[in-house]
Amino acid sequence: MESDTTGKKTLIVFSGDLDRAMAAFIIANGAAAMGDEVTMFFTFWGLNILRKPKKVKARKDLVQGMFGAMMPRGPAKLGLSKMNFGGVGAVMMKRVMRKKNVATLNELIASAREQGVKLVVCSMSMDVMGFQPDELIDGLEIAGVASYLWEADQANVNLFI
Amino acid sequence: MESDTTGKKTLIVFSGDLDRAMAAFIIANGAAAMGDEVTMFFTFWGLNILRKPKKVKARKDLVQGMFGAMMPRGPAKLGLSKMNFGGVGAVMMKRVMRKKNVATLNELIASAREQGVKLVVCSMSMDVMGFQPDELIDGLEIAGVASYLWEADQANVNLFI
Amino acid sequence: MESDTTGKKTLIVFSGDLDRAMAAFIIANGAAAMGDEVTMFFTFWGLNILRKPKKVKARKDLVQGMFGAMMPRGPAKLGLSKMNFGGVGAVMMKRVMRKKNVATLNELIASAREQGVKLVVCSMSMDVMGFQPDELIDGLEIAGVASYLWEADQANVNLFI
Repeated sequence: MESDTTGKKTLIVFSGDLDRAMAAFIIANGAAAMGDEVTMFFTFWGLNILRKPKKVKARKDLVQGMFGAMMPRGPAKLGLSKMNFGGVGAVMMKRVMRKKNVATLNELIASAREQGVKLVVCSMSMDVMGFQPDELIDGLEIAGVASYLWEADQANVNLFI
Repeated sequence: MESDTTGKKTLIVFSGDLDRAMAAFIIANGAAAMGDEVTMFFTFWGLNILRKPKKVKARKDLVQGMFGAMMPRGPAKLGLSKMNFGGVGAVMMKRVMRKKNVATLNELIASAREQGVKLVVCSMSMDVMGFQPDELIDGLEIAGVASYLWEADQANVNLFI
Repeated sequence: MESDTTGKKTLIVFSGDLDRAMAAFIIANGAAAMGDEVTMFFTFWGLNILRKPKKVKARKDLVQGMFGAMMPRGPAKLGLSKMNFGGVGAVMMKRVMRKKNVATLNELIASAREQGVKLVVCSMSMDVMGFQPDELIDGLEIAGVASYLWEADQANVNLFI
């Protein structure tokens, strides 16, 4: 492979932590800016990154309702993977980042979409957690593991975050 | 690389969390079903996924004995990486998954083996944690980092989970 | 790709946990020993692995000072990602590893550098956490996501740890 090769990138976003989500979107935006095709697959806790901030009515069973109520609704509510201290750590981190002119997670997501990064949600995770499509931000694709593997086979960098 | 390429896949399973273990085996099964050769390397906490559910007599020093007693014995005892709440979260998650007809981790492991996924255990982790081969499920290979790297060099998708 | 191919490897070290840091450096040392070019990118909590053990005077704002004071200073202070129990788990793990003649994290870092593994620190993380270059061990490169992607494009194995 030559040094000037650009290629496709895929990122599995399993984590729903603010810090890991930011790392994922920083890589995705960077790659898209360099001309790469990028696909992000959101699975398990990663779906929380894509939730709308307000409660959306949806039929759920008891456990799904509990998961839905307890898990964070979108970027503003995500915690840090370390030193979160009940959310204080996340607030502190966001304050420092703002001061350093680092884009917020919401801005990173918007930028990724403008640059054509494809956001795909794991269908099994949707089903298990009981999320309806309109509980998540618009414009997502829903697909399964076969779709991920098909894209990863065409990519030259594949990460699990 | 062409879109119809199938190739080898390797997964390092470092985590011993139920959710991450499921993600790893779902990817492994999916790839095997698509005709890929798949090798999973279990290291550190990932070894807990492969423990037999019952205590097996083995000579250990004090610390290894403590680790062995405190770490989960196999799929039924694994916790979630988030929202585990002392195991309640894992029970809830398993209940929802059963309702949604998602295969259990035990079923995913059995299916992976039937499909010829190679399960390799890190020899250093075995040694450090004081696991004897018969404390883990049968049919595993034991190997070191050189073996992993040799396989990863032949694969087109390599993930660290 | 042929089985005897050696190629470049990149590792993103996002985590600052002792166990994950060890896994990263064991892979890096193994690959370097097999003749591969290896680049490790340290970002977010991964920077703690590279901190000097003693406090270094540096201008920081209040939050950066707090983060700096609360985060571990180098390999000797890192905790485990699981079963850390306020540091007791890490001490136990290090004791077992010493008994089993596993290299310490400090030794693994030294060995990686002797073998020519390139250690790169994420410039944005430096900026956000308020680290000055002399708070970290010597001989590191500082670079951004574009540099990572450029190297990953040339590598045949890329992991996110």
